[in-house]
Amino acid sequence: MNHGTWDKIRVVQYGCGKMGRIIIRYLLEKGAEVVGAIDTDEEIEGKDIGELCGLDRETGVKVKKSADTVLDNCDADIAVLALQSFLTDMHKAILECVTRGINVITTSEEALYPWTTAADITNQLDALAKRTGCTITGSGMQDVFWVNFPALIAGGVHHIAEIEGAVSYNVEDYGIALARAHGVGLTEEEFERTVARSLDNPAYVWNSNEALCMKLGLSIEQTRQKAVPVFADHDVFSQTLGETIPKGKAVGMSAVVTSVTHQGVVIETQCIGKVYEEGEGDQCRFQIHGEPDVVFSVDHPDTVSHTCATIVNRIPDVIAAPAGFITMDKLPYARYLSYPMFVDIGY
Amino acid sequence: MNHGTWDKIRVVQYGCGKMGRIIIRYLLEKGAEVVGAIDTDEEIEGKDIGELCGLDRETGVKVKKSADTVLDNCDADIAVLALQSFLTDMHKAILECVTRGINVITTSEEALYPWTTAADITNQLDALAKRTGCTITGSGMQDVFWVNFPALIAGGVHHIAEIEGAVSYNVEDYGIALARAHGVGLTEEEFERTVARSLDNPAYVWNSNEALCMKLGLSIEQTRQKAVPVFADHDVFSQTLGETIPKGKAVGMSAVVTSVTHQGVVIETQCIGKVYEEGEGDQCRFQIHGEPDVVFSVDHPDTVSHTCATIVNRIPDVIAAPAGFITMDKLPYARYLSYPMFVDIGY
Repeated sequence: MNHGTWDKIRVVQYGCGKMGRIIIRYLLEKGAEVVGAIDTDEEIEGKDIGELCGLDRETGVKVKKSADTVLDNCDADIAVLALQSFLTDMHKAILECVTRGINVITTSEEALYPWTTAADITNQLDALAKRTGCTITGSGMQDVFWVNFPALIAGGVHHIAEIEGAVSYNVEDYGIALARAHGVGLTEEEFERTVARSLDNPAYVWNSNEALCMKLGLSIEQTRQKAVPVFADHDVFSQTLGETIPKGKAVGMSAVVTSVTHQGVVIETQCIGKVYEEGEGDQCRFQIHGEPDVVFSVDHPDTVSHTCATIVNRIPDVIAAPAGFITMDKLPYARYLSYPMFVDIGY
Repeated sequence: MNHGTWDKIRVVQYGCGKMGRIIIRYLLEKGAEVVGAIDTDEEIEGKDIGELCGLDRETGVKVKKSADTVLDNCDADIAVLALQSFLTDMHKAILECVTRGINVITTSEEALYPWTTAADITNQLDALAKRTGCTITGSGMQDVFWVNFPALIAGGVHHIAEIEGAVSYNVEDYGIALARAHGVGLTEEEFERTVARSLDNPAYVWNSNEALCMKLGLSIEQTRQKAVPVFADHDVFSQTLGETIPKGKAVGMSAVVTSVTHQGVVIETQCIGKVYEEGEGDQCRFQIHGEPDVVFSVDHPDTVSHTCATIVNRIPDVIAAPAGFITMDKLPYARYLSYPMFVDIGY
């Protein structure tokens, strides 16, 4: 902690949906200055972010549709992008920030470790960020719970032969883009033809598996995935789609991602993303087979809240990181901010 | 990882009991050079460490009783001390290494964070280590599983009000010194008069609680403990004591340690150390009360193996650390060694 002169961290929230609104509240509670808010949804255009996030006060910062207007009229330290899951969809928004030299942290699941799933975009953004002197990092639930968690436990293990993981989340919590990417509402034939075939849509554990390999000092020989649709055996209502998914159509998918490393360690993670029914909860469970065997888990993690909390806790790390596309495996372990976040202004 | 010229790490194993023998095997399997072995037990004096650890080969290194003889006749990078639990008992052995400028890592539970429970010894050793240019660190199971584990999960949490933990271990696994410190075999009156009263015997979670506070950026207002004996309700045989503990005498104790911080966060950990019966397993479970609540655990951790693995995985961190009594909260998170450990010899 700094004992000199410090300033609040200035943040632009880019994407003010369900996740963005929680992030704004967490930011304000951690002492950050939210200096801009961008969202294309006309229903919230012009709204004060205080009202938007259910606070008892106005902040003076209104949601605007134009990213250019917002980004050109403040001096943001970082932009928090809570938009889509995949970098092809996020490319333009990241460029808007990085061309201006503004650091980016994003909930984009692919951005966690996109070197093999979106190599061209990642390399281009990495080179650009190094020129403009800013950092791009993907974070969220997977950072602490899917990568650092098994990597930490491995620090207490002598020999690893295999790591098996199973994580799940409710597709309803992440908006329509993620639901579509999971094939919600598709028939078996539609699922096989679209979601199952396309490597443009890597399972989120593809990216987390590879980040975990990196964190463990393993080099990846091959990562492969198998996408298996999960079908409703009775009608299930999806709030996100605003419709009932009839029996026989997909409520989501289970992806089994296997990373084989040149060191012989295999990491296989099953990732279940589906529309939950009453009483279902998330799972996050890992098993290391080795010396010794070890089983470790988080009971029904509150994935949305952990995603938003991790993003906010990571902001000082991203600002302190070197320029480039610095994936979370290269940052120190995420840590709890027990005091307000700040930047050292050095005088 | 180094791409230049490197050398094996040279290690002296000081204490060749149950833990020390596993550590020696792990060291050899991780590519370290075991250059000396010290133990006062006459039964193993002169034995080759290969034979002692159940390996199929002789190493040429024999167990010797004299620490001076061993330490003066090799150029060790580090000594691994698997001796007693408390620093008053460990003081002499640590001094033997530190006066010679040899780094120390120890399984001593108190050494994990001894600043309040053994302040004088710790400060003296810290000053001495800084003069002789070496590092002293306590590690083991508690490092990864009792401190870094809750600290990491906290990195995905927005607000912490309280952390509750419950850990347990089998007193039978750690030799007679630890069994005595847990009051095994004592009557209620004897327990109250000795173990329960004495702050020379802080519960192991006292030290881990305070390391966790440090890791979370919290300052400790007060730590207090309550030691509650666990009595046998029928005769229980203890292999370590080599005798049957009759019904009504203590098979161990449960310590509830509460750390109150100036930031308002309370950390309360229950530590159960007892002679297990058939079928009992260790527990390691934490709950953060905050936003959000989160419950996380390791199922029946293999405490002995995790302790030895963590000690060995920590060695490069200790060698790289600055001089002084550098408690594990100041080191990076423990990490799995996927390649042989080594020291860079810089040419």
